[in-house]
Amino acid sequence: MRIGMLTGGGDCPGLNAVIRAVVRKGAGMHGHEFVGFRDGWRGPLENLTMPLGIPDVRGILPRGGTILGSSRTNPFGVDGGVERVTENLHKLGVDALIAIGGEDTLGVATKLHERGVNVVGVPKTIDNDLNATDYTFGFDTAVNIATEAIDRLHTTAESHHRALIVEVMGRHAGWIALHAGMAGGANVILIPEFPFSIERVCAYVESRFQAHYAPIIVVAEGALPDGGDTSILEKGVDAFGHVRLGGIGEWLANEIESRTGKEARTTVLGHIQRGGTPTAYDRVLATRFGLAAMDSVTERAWGTMVALQGTDIVRVPLSAATAELKLVTPERYAEVEVFFG
Amino acid sequence: MRIGMLTGGGDCPGLNAVIRAVVRKGAGMHGHEFVGFRDGWRGPLENLTMPLGIPDVRGILPRGGTILGSSRTNPFGVDGGVERVTENLHKLGVDALIAIGGEDTLGVATKLHERGVNVVGVPKTIDNDLNATDYTFGFDTAVNIATEAIDRLHTTAESHHRALIVEVMGRHAGWIALHAGMAGGANVILIPEFPFSIERVCAYVESRFQAHYAPIIVVAEGALPDGGDTSILEKGVDAFGHVRLGGIGEWLANEIESRTGKEARTTVLGHIQRGGTPTAYDRVLATRFGLAAMDSVTERAWGTMVALQGTDIVRVPLSAATAELKLVTPERYAEVEVFFG
Amino acid sequence: MRIGMLTGGGDCPGLNAVIRAVVRKGAGMHGHEFVGFRDGWRGPLENLTMPLGIPDVRGILPRGGTILGSSRTNPFGVDGGVERVTENLHKLGVDALIAIGGEDTLGVATKLHERGVNVVGVPKTIDNDLNATDYTFGFDTAVNIATEAIDRLHTTAESHHRALIVEVMGRHAGWIALHAGMAGGANVILIPEFPFSIERVCAYVESRFQAHYAPIIVVAEGALPDGGDTSILEKGVDAFGHVRLGGIGEWLANEIESRTGKEARTTVLGHIQRGGTPTAYDRVLATRFGLAAMDSVTERAWGTMVALQGTDIVRVPLSAATAELKLVTPERYAEVEVFFG
Amino acid sequence: MRIGMLTGGGDCPGLNAVIRAVVRKGAGMHGHEFVGFRDGWRGPLENLTMPLGIPDVRGILPRGGTILGSSRTNPFGVDGGVERVTENLHKLGVDALIAIGGEDTLGVATKLHERGVNVVGVPKTIDNDLNATDYTFGFDTAVNIATEAIDRLHTTAESHHRALIVEVMGRHAGWIALHAGMAGGANVILIPEFPFSIERVCAYVESRFQAHYAPIIVVAEGALPDGGDTSILEKGVDAFGHVRLGGIGEWLANEIESRTGKEARTTVLGHIQRGGTPTAYDRVLATRFGLAAMDSVTERAWGTMVALQGTDIVRVPLSAATAELKLVTPERYAEVEVFFG
Repeated sequence: MRIGMLTGGGDCPGLNAVIRAVVRKGAGMHGHEFVGFRDGWRGPLENLTMPLGIPDVRGILPRGGTILGSSRTNPFGVDGGVERVTENLHKLGVDALIAIGGEDTLGVATKLHERGVNVVGVPKTIDNDLNATDYTFGFDTAVNIATEAIDRLHTTAESHHRALIVEVMGRHAGWIALHAGMAGGANVILIPEFPFSIERVCAYVESRFQAHYAPIIVVAEGALPDGGDTSILEKGVDAFGHVRLGGIGEWLANEIESRTGKEARTTVLGHIQRGGTPTAYDRVLATRFGLAAMDSVTERAWGTMVALQGTDIVRVPLSAATAELKLVTPERYAEVEVFFG
Repeated sequence: MRIGMLTGGGDCPGLNAVIRAVVRKGAGMHGHEFVGFRDGWRGPLENLTMPLGIPDVRGILPRGGTILGSSRTNPFGVDGGVERVTENLHKLGVDALIAIGGEDTLGVATKLHERGVNVVGVPKTIDNDLNATDYTFGFDTAVNIATEAIDRLHTTAESHHRALIVEVMGRHAGWIALHAGMAGGANVILIPEFPFSIERVCAYVESRFQAHYAPIIVVAEGALPDGGDTSILEKGVDAFGHVRLGGIGEWLANEIESRTGKEARTTVLGHIQRGGTPTAYDRVLATRFGLAAMDSVTERAWGTMVALQGTDIVRVPLSAATAELKLVTPERYAEVEVFFG
Repeated sequence: MRIGMLTGGGDCPGLNAVIRAVVRKGAGMHGHEFVGFRDGWRGPLENLTMPLGIPDVRGILPRGGTILGSSRTNPFGVDGGVERVTENLHKLGVDALIAIGGEDTLGVATKLHERGVNVVGVPKTIDNDLNATDYTFGFDTAVNIATEAIDRLHTTAESHHRALIVEVMGRHAGWIALHAGMAGGANVILIPEFPFSIERVCAYVESRFQAHYAPIIVVAEGALPDGGDTSILEKGVDAFGHVRLGGIGEWLANEIESRTGKEARTTVLGHIQRGGTPTAYDRVLATRFGLAAMDSVTERAWGTMVALQGTDIVRVPLSAATAELKLVTPERYAEVEVFFG
Repeated sequence: MRIGMLTGGGDCPGLNAVIRAVVRKGAGMHGHEFVGFRDGWRGPLENLTMPLGIPDVRGILPRGGTILGSSRTNPFGVDGGVERVTENLHKLGVDALIAIGGEDTLGVATKLHERGVNVVGVPKTIDNDLNATDYTFGFDTAVNIATEAIDRLHTTAESHHRALIVEVMGRHAGWIALHAGMAGGANVILIPEFPFSIERVCAYVESRFQAHYAPIIVVAEGALPDGGDTSILEKGVDAFGHVRLGGIGEWLANEIESRTGKEARTTVLGHIQRGGTPTAYDRVLATRFGLAAMDSVTERAWGTMVALQGTDIVRVPLSAATAELKLVTPERYAEVEVFFG
């Protein structure tokens, strides 16, 4: 068999582990050939390929990023795009395609499958907001990086009597903030699922200072105050006409300073949450996803994607990738509220 | 309510996170009082207690070990031991007891519950070999430490054309070896569940050298060759009459050297696998276990212990702690065999 | 002898290691008593003290921050401040004072010494910009944290074809950027000592993309373009009237995007560079500084501070702490220019 | 110019950083050509070469090991070996040779230089026992790995009331034990330079237990008790006729157990100390050594090697590589004795 593979969307630790597992099982055990498509759907669209044999995946397991490159190109948004993709797959003699990516990437895969392309999917979202799977790879690495940052900030907060705010990823779902905040011992955790009261946050901050400690607040980038609108999250324009960083972390620091009179500082973790060597957990999960995706190809389970349920890797329909987001539940949020203040 | 708490058995990253969560919820939210028992069952047996309020659990979340101390003392092995334990609990006015530990510690808890003591349990096994729960805290930390060691050894192996063997924990179950070996890209993984053929291991070693790479072998301390008996794992006595390190890692290195003529070296990770700051995963799991154990007390669910199923914390009977071990299945072992050689 | 000790200025990994070494040698070997002053010079000014014996320094070696707290209070800026400090020292029976801090803290120490107070100093600057010493503690930790962040960003840059900018500490001296950039394999390093040409930076960025790689740029927070003035580094005010993050990293990303048409993203490392557990290098240096400062007290070498020269800890006049800054030399900058582009 | 390069002796984090810096400066700035010799002196002896241009050194800066491979081959120990080396260098048109290695590798380089070969050297010893240079690369990484292991063991020691022994590298010089022990807060540090009294060690162990803490002992592999001979360090032979691990760490554990009646356990760090990604310190030092070695070639400073003095990279005669070892001085050892017990 001749199998194509591509990675789309944002960076996520574990992508290379998936690629390696697919190739080691597909080429090493079954003798299949692989075609690597570069830069997500741009690869089959513009016929950008690279060799993808066992030597090409050597040593990539602990490496972040993706050797295939990535992009947000969507062939359905390009005139005649779908036809070019299917034509290119046909010309290259590709019998099956493994698409690794998030909502957008697997949304394209779903539509191509409906048009008869033999596709299987591997879900990827660093935000862990996919209902069909207990966890996605990359999430554990992001949580560990954020936790380590919170660990480091504790001592600074205490030594300087300052409120410190850590803004982490999570535009729609607060999983990274929830887990990193719980693991890091944050005093307040703010997430998109539950609009917060700035008065209550300031009350926590003050009670904490009164107890002679300094508060650490973890905030997901998509969290909003009660009644606040998303313009708060938009980037400002400065006196030089340049777009500047801003966001909810900055907003919070300003509010806390003006309402409590205490110093507050924000750290925005940004891209360092999604790069670099994956944790062991993510390498194992990504490797198992890769092996199972290869099995899906062997068993011609087209239109499915792999998922984690408990400790098992299972198959679910590809369409699950674009279903409703998995959000933090009130029960899970109540767990961390025990530690607030 | 007045609640006693103890930790028993071997060290495990996350114990302090459990203790902190119990106290933060029990004392902070419900206003209960706590009695800390020192050194496992020795605490209630010999009336060794320590204060255990919110100030005592401050800052312990990221710390390894247990502030309560631990031991392997079993009151059922001591003449009149059980009576002294129940009497001491009574004298101290302890209404409920939270026991955190493995098979032995929770075995005692089970028997005490049968005699009418109000006990709830929190399972702890760094080996992850408990059937009732998907994962136990401490395991993820151990796997990460072992994986980092394997990562480091790869470059040495390659630069020196040597077979390198890493011996990890796992006397009865090979979960640490399985996960760390998969995450670290080991070329062979040997575990207690599947006796290995030393000829086949040497064949892998040689094929790897022929491909101009150097093999990394991960072996669980309890793995055995086909037909081998456990005397291989026993400690030798040297010319000075001293007990010396030995074990399956050393045995393997010697066999590989004598059978293939290639240099082989063993690293025994030992105690560094079970100490130090827990990973974010283990801190979250341990914290959730602690919160849920406190709920079990509130709801008087005596004789139960907490467990992880999927992403949920559930309750199972305490007796599950001493049920059959969770072993690596042939299916899970087949996953890593894809990467052998 | 009765010895006071205080820590002033910004957070710096290694402060606790200094405190511990002083107390272990002073109290443990020589039997001296210690008075801990809280929050820098605010301590002796407002008579804020804490116990500082051997039990108080137990376990603090690997911890970031300072158990004594810190502040930027300057008694010379307070009416009657100096008199209150000397009076409080006298009332507490303090025979000698060990001041640990940067330019400001040791500037106060110098003046107090001139007024007859028995002071010795321990220099502290995470920026490593003190001429009298080869290195200061905290610097190595900051460089490692920044290097790890750069390592993580490499894979994201490559996978997404983006220019990534890392803004690190260094308002006046570029040592952190220089070392972290060299260690992380940055493609361009911009520091305050050498105004940069934005055209040249963009040319590097473009040549890098043409070679199918993505550039990583490390910039010290105090770096400026040729002819640029410091208003670029000032914080902007957004539409909400709030001060917002900005700085040279943001400025660079905007310039690169508008001049090259390539995506550029900035990560500002901020406070995570100065918190958390110190590296082994910093723990050793800080411990040796503490031991030597205690020797300075024993030998009544008032008005001196400790410093590292080669592998030796030496004594230099306290006034050296406020001498001209140690800046990156053209020779050192030429070393990293080899790797630009 | 056509420049050969080789790496010899044991693995050491930073070797690849040296190689990369040489090639980036030599090929990138000066346009020289490089010949990579494989596996130390075996390369020029057996004419084993590999391409060594800028693409070959891409991405190797953070990687442990050496892309050139290594061995302990000594052409002076091979019949006609020297002649074959010089003949092969001549045939390949090699104008200059850069040798990176320790005492043995640079000893060969020194003799070849005496016979007219244009050689410059880069010193490498993870043990940091070279008099001519303040530090060597790899040492800082080894110290950090050992320190992290000690950090992890503290909590286990305390929780289980056990003496824990960490055996680190250092056959002749105790630098790794000294620095890691100081950084990790060890209670006793034993090194080859100062024979120890086992009675005194046991007294420290007992006083520590009496204070309700558990001792951590760091021992260099070459440390010996007073009057002890090196047979203690030799490997034992077990009942199976196999050579087994042993060494001073095991010996100590046995002595402590039998003399104090307390449990003692040994962890031998072994190869994980010398593998894996280098610290920022080592990457900077190794890079600066590489750049300076390239300058030595350009300036035809044959027969020299690079060294660190203070913060400067200097040149010293190649013969310095085989001069007397740099040992831990009584003054440096007295520093850590403050913390014993």
